[in-house]
Amino acid sequence: MLAAARAAFAERGFDGATIRGIATAAGVDPALVHHYFGSKDQLFLAAIEAPADPAELLPELLAGGPDRLGEGVVRTLLTVWDGPGQAAGLALVRSAIGNEWGARLLREFLATQVLRRVIRSLDHPPAEAELRAALAASQLVGLVVGRYVLKIEPLASAAPEWLVAAVGPTVQRYLTGEVALPG
Amino acid sequence: MLAAARAAFAERGFDGATIRGIATAAGVDPALVHHYFGSKDQLFLAAIEAPADPAELLPELLAGGPDRLGEGVVRTLLTVWDGPGQAAGLALVRSAIGNEWGARLLREFLATQVLRRVIRSLDHPPAEAELRAALAASQLVGLVVGRYVLKIEPLASAAPEWLVAAVGPTVQRYLTGEVALPG
Repeated sequence: MLAAARAAFAERGFDGATIRGIATAAGVDPALVHHYFGSKDQLFLAAIEAPADPAELLPELLAGGPDRLGEGVVRTLLTVWDGPGQAAGLALVRSAIGNEWGARLLREFLATQVLRRVIRSLDHPPAEAELRAALAASQLVGLVVGRYVLKIEPLASAAPEWLVAAVGPTVQRYLTGEVALPG
Repeated sequence: MLAAARAAFAERGFDGATIRGIATAAGVDPALVHHYFGSKDQLFLAAIEAPADPAELLPELLAGGPDRLGEGVVRTLLTVWDGPGQAAGLALVRSAIGNEWGARLLREFLATQVLRRVIRSLDHPPAEAELRAALAASQLVGLVVGRYVLKIEPLASAAPEWLVAAVGPTVQRYLTGEVALPG
């Protein structure tokens, strides 16, 4: 079931894939997929072996209000990566950079499980929301790759709270601040 | 010679490796290494198959003055990556994420060939300069990985000048703006 799910999510994206289609491809009843994995979100997280469930982490972050989103996102990201989620996170990043399927799965994870939920709490028009989410993703991906993969010093050994203070304002500007819009 | 150079740069870093040591490891005369590659900088660029020579690109960028560094760095990066340097850049990034040697070589490239030269044009104390350079690296690495590897939209198809306007201010703040310093 998980192999069929990975294939479907990589080929059609999270929104395009259906539990019914995945069940058919795996030769099982859709009810069985629901029974084992619950929602499509949870099946997706299991299929990509996500380091954490954003649906559990985001409500607290969003409760801080729109002006604390930047530091909240950076703090939550560092908490997951400095904790037991690091191994799964590294595997996800390595697979994303090693092959096109992996890239699509990580992109779908960031877009549908993390950034869509963060950006929906704000009031941007859809096209602007996409731009802002992608800019925030560029900083968050760079923080993860720089700190945990390339291990650039002093990024790699910096205290999380310093990184929250230094990088949080960047993510905040991308999400709610002044950003040039194209054309 | 290039294999010996890669090994030396990965093991000792750019500053620690010497042309003499590399020549000895390759069983050749140091004069031969100088003859083929010129300076240690050029040997390093050849050994890692760098997508561009920062020593050629940076003077023009630095001539714009400290207040235009952020957008200048982003513009130069995008020019290299949107041009013929992309294949070599992707190979460098993939190798950096795939193995520890590759990570060290990319880290040394960013630190000694790019960021050290940019940050030296400013007047920061050494510890602060390192912090600022690492923060700038986190955004630049994320921009490259997001646009060219993960291909996150609309980052992947955005016009370079829009990205310069949107991401440039982040790099500018990291290099010269207000940034929390640790402890």
